[in-house]
Amino acid sequence: MPFTENFNTVVRETEQWLDRLVPPEDAFPPAIHQAMRYSLFAGGKRMRPLLAVAGCQAAGGERAAAMPFAAALEIIHTYTLIHDDLPALDDDELRRGKPTCHVKFGEDIAILAGDALLTLAFRVLTDRSLFPGVPAESLLALARETAEAIGSTGTIGGQVVDLEHENATALDPAILEYIHTHKTGKLIALACRGGGMLGGAGEDQLSALTEYGRRVGLAFQIIDDILDVEGDEKRLGKKTGADKRMNKMTYPSVAGMKASREKAVELIDMAIRELEMFGEKAAPLADLARYVAARTL
Amino acid sequence: MPFTENFNTVVRETEQWLDRLVPPEDAFPPAIHQAMRYSLFAGGKRMRPLLAVAGCQAAGGERAAAMPFAAALEIIHTYTLIHDDLPALDDDELRRGKPTCHVKFGEDIAILAGDALLTLAFRVLTDRSLFPGVPAESLLALARETAEAIGSTGTIGGQVVDLEHENATALDPAILEYIHTHKTGKLIALACRGGGMLGGAGEDQLSALTEYGRRVGLAFQIIDDILDVEGDEKRLGKKTGADKRMNKMTYPSVAGMKASREKAVELIDMAIRELEMFGEKAAPLADLARYVAARTL
Repeated sequence: MPFTENFNTVVRETEQWLDRLVPPEDAFPPAIHQAMRYSLFAGGKRMRPLLAVAGCQAAGGERAAAMPFAAALEIIHTYTLIHDDLPALDDDELRRGKPTCHVKFGEDIAILAGDALLTLAFRVLTDRSLFPGVPAESLLALARETAEAIGSTGTIGGQVVDLEHENATALDPAILEYIHTHKTGKLIALACRGGGMLGGAGEDQLSALTEYGRRVGLAFQIIDDILDVEGDEKRLGKKTGADKRMNKMTYPSVAGMKASREKAVELIDMAIRELEMFGEKAAPLADLARYVAARTL
Repeated sequence: MPFTENFNTVVRETEQWLDRLVPPEDAFPPAIHQAMRYSLFAGGKRMRPLLAVAGCQAAGGERAAAMPFAAALEIIHTYTLIHDDLPALDDDELRRGKPTCHVKFGEDIAILAGDALLTLAFRVLTDRSLFPGVPAESLLALARETAEAIGSTGTIGGQVVDLEHENATALDPAILEYIHTHKTGKLIALACRGGGMLGGAGEDQLSALTEYGRRVGLAFQIIDDILDVEGDEKRLGKKTGADKRMNKMTYPSVAGMKASREKAVELIDMAIRELEMFGEKAAPLADLARYVAARTL
């Protein structure tokens, strides 16, 4: 499979879908739509859409079947970034090499742009016309699982616990794992699982996709922590050392750099092993797992 | 119909549903669930649940059919209050006689509690087990209409335009009407219409319920503006004069107090006239319209 070409197609189509789903910049009131688009098109890696499409393909589905869901995931991811960057939360001024949403548009518009993106994601996930051939019950289930994954016991729960431990002196590995598996892991696992649902996966396949997603998600976060210590600011598009400045618990600070690398590699291996039942159709998922690992090597 | 008794039942059942739908205070992580519950149970009038149930009953449905939707509306309303009260937006310290969410729990938790409530509302609206007998397509349509009503061209759009005109010197009545019909009007109209959908209303009935809701919603907001000038702080549970301090455009400031009162009364009359096709079944909706009007007399 031509790795790069396939993935570039998904990235390009995700951006086309985002452009189609979000009101244009001049739609009234323009300030909110400019802010939503500014953050959506600030050049993300589109990791969650890639995972969703690869999950759909692993189950035997077509790329097109997963695209609106893939776009909804990116919309949700962008909302979490905008709110996490706010002064009252992580207080970041730079994201993907550009001023963060509140720096560019003001805190008020940034808060509302995040709210509007979250709302838009559910607008997309409840629109049958965007998911031809998907039974209404299946679409409801997908929207419900999405709400569960990103709610107060999911993504938001992870962010709350992260904030609570910003200046923690005692570093509990269980707390750190909760933060990572929830703050980023829940949405990444949902991407894989939801893609599988749209591809017609059975229960066994959905469980495998969820496990794959959990492991890749945790590896992804550990590697993010490693890059915050060792990475190249220019390539990352954000300041490194932010975790240390914020006194944030990270895998390297809790377990050390060597053990963190080993853990990430082990998680990637385990994730790839979950894919056996899918055969060749899971090649994109395996490639994505290797791509996540490669960021840190 | 025993007016007060019926309405008290809806308020009580709404609060029972909220208690059932929101994780308990000690659910991990507790901070977010405490904040969500604090704001949900701070003693609102439950106007939107009352309208949803009355809309359902007007269409011939049972109260029970509308209750989870009624609770979801109150969850959404509470999220908008928490975010609107933030320092970066309206900067309110008192709401319903109590410290606002960010004063009590901090800005970070307040932002996330709003996000979690918005997410929870869609969790509720996509859960078929909460809406027995409602076809999956109908529930999807209700969730989609909800997302449209409260998104960047709905409730959030109204809040954006409100913020943009905080210090406006020229007062354009069309802008003011946009703010009122969107910031509060969209959710109130949705309450009536969505209640009707769950009660099995036909297209004509849904149109009438939507028109009723638009008019009552606008009247409600005009009366809110009037009360902000003339109201009793103790009874309102919040500081009056806030609009003037914030240099906010209000109906009284644009049209004068007398014309504002007349406009509110006219809207209520028109709203009640929309109910003719429903006959006696619309008595609760008519009572609610009169209740809205009575606040200012």
